[in-house]
Amino acid sequence: MYSEKIRLYEDREDVTLTTYVQNDANSLLGDYNRPAILICPGGGYMKCATQEAEPVAIRFAAMGYQAFVLRYSTYFSQDSNVTFPTAKEEIEIKEYCVFPNPMLEIGKAMLLIREHAREWKVDVDRITLCGFSAGAHNVAMYANSWNTNLVLDYLKTSSEHLRPVAVILGYMAGDYYFSKIDQIEVEKEMFFRVSYAAILGKQELTEEDIERMSPSRHVNRDTPPAFLWSTYEDRTVSVKNTIKMAEALANQHIPFDMHIFEEGPHGLSLATQESAKVKKQVNPDAAKWVELAEAWLQKRMALELPETI
Amino acid sequence: MYSEKIRLYEDREDVTLTTYVQNDANSLLGDYNRPAILICPGGGYMKCATQEAEPVAIRFAAMGYQAFVLRYSTYFSQDSNVTFPTAKEEIEIKEYCVFPNPMLEIGKAMLLIREHAREWKVDVDRITLCGFSAGAHNVAMYANSWNTNLVLDYLKTSSEHLRPVAVILGYMAGDYYFSKIDQIEVEKEMFFRVSYAAILGKQELTEEDIERMSPSRHVNRDTPPAFLWSTYEDRTVSVKNTIKMAEALANQHIPFDMHIFEEGPHGLSLATQESAKVKKQVNPDAAKWVELAEAWLQKRMALELPETI
Repeated sequence: MYSEKIRLYEDREDVTLTTYVQNDANSLLGDYNRPAILICPGGGYMKCATQEAEPVAIRFAAMGYQAFVLRYSTYFSQDSNVTFPTAKEEIEIKEYCVFPNPMLEIGKAMLLIREHAREWKVDVDRITLCGFSAGAHNVAMYANSWNTNLVLDYLKTSSEHLRPVAVILGYMAGDYYFSKIDQIEVEKEMFFRVSYAAILGKQELTEEDIERMSPSRHVNRDTPPAFLWSTYEDRTVSVKNTIKMAEALANQHIPFDMHIFEEGPHGLSLATQESAKVKKQVNPDAAKWVELAEAWLQKRMALELPETI
Repeated sequence: MYSEKIRLYEDREDVTLTTYVQNDANSLLGDYNRPAILICPGGGYMKCATQEAEPVAIRFAAMGYQAFVLRYSTYFSQDSNVTFPTAKEEIEIKEYCVFPNPMLEIGKAMLLIREHAREWKVDVDRITLCGFSAGAHNVAMYANSWNTNLVLDYLKTSSEHLRPVAVILGYMAGDYYFSKIDQIEVEKEMFFRVSYAAILGKQELTEEDIERMSPSRHVNRDTPPAFLWSTYEDRTVSVKNTIKMAEALANQHIPFDMHIFEEGPHGLSLATQESAKVKKQVNPDAAKWVELAEAWLQKRMALELPETI
């Protein structure tokens, strides 16, 4: 396996694409390219969560896909221990992580994969994006706007180079209404204030921000098919985010799977020992999302195997 | 992921250990070591099959284990296109691949992993060996003799450094009686003649060879617990090999799982698109061996996750 971390900007070490590319694919299937998955970990736009990065990439690689992890711009550096400001402290704004930067980095990563397609044996017309929590928000924002001028003008390429074939959205922050501070629990307030500061460049949401930053409100006919999953018990990002996204997809006649598992906290990732930091993050019921996603991906991402060689 | 191919002998490039070591394990679980799987691909001791190497390692890595592929000594070089000698041609004997060399290389690989345990974050007391076909034969031979003088004298170490915690044996060549040339189909004859030449250093089996080289006849109280699987339809290595191994384990009170799937040819590996070269090697029923093995491994290989951090 060829695994390397590559910078998206020469002068920044925090924004990277990590490859999980199968070398033996070569001798196994000749000159055969494999569909790919690009993974955006969550972390409230404050950092990219470890448990939603490498473990997920390896699991998708085990399905036969070339896998990639994008660490997009976040408020805190990837290696730091996050310490939240105290409640009334002024929260510094960091322009590099404010929207649309993290979303545009998905497009940059798509182009980087396309550039190395031959070396990495990637079927560039079949790249699925997979995000968790804030990473799913980032993916969903991109899924709604990959062919808009905002993205095309920045990346200076044609839209067909940027189209994802499908998206996987795990416990997505899909509608900012549900995370507006007066809707959420008091103990989570600082978490969301820093998260707003990170992605919006301010600590309070206006109605206009909610409208602009809620991907479930911008699903359109060019949004790719989606696989949604979440847990009913999620107390950080309400399951209503996922339900509202499903409704928007249905309204626009975009095909989707949705799987809601009753039990399990926020941030389950694979929900197996592979991604868990603590025991309660292992949940055999919720872990079924992986095989459900594997079956769903086959609809558009199946390897085209020969009858004989 | 740290993936590198390391030579087992400085002066030979054909015998290698390839690592599939998770880097992020570090930040995920602190100073936590992970149990490991060492995989021996099949290939009739003629070469190490690609489809039973990297795809399998990645799939076990996705379970949370550090994974390794051992390419042991085989008759043909790993990169060559195998061309069988014609029926009556003299078959050259190559001493380097004759028993016990391939088996001793499993021990060498165990010690190499132990040597790098800190760097690779491996829990060296929990290494499972996994083999397919001839690779399973090699693993089973080792499983019966890891603490014998043959192994200990060659490796010059103490037996506790060599004990596998468990073994996984896929469509194993377990009893040479079933592959004796008068038992097998005529079209497979040359395959077996070259295979005998490779591992036995001669083309015909004596009764003594069958006795010595059939691991199902040497199961003892120090043989580790085993997970056996095969298909009823296998026409290259009869399912009877697996059944006889199960009987031997039962006789010695060694715990085991055994799963025989009715359909599927020899050499299925994962039986998914990840390992398949052609369509008939994808078999959703037989592919269930992986999740059955995942559950079985948990008995001795579960990650010890904390309740909280």
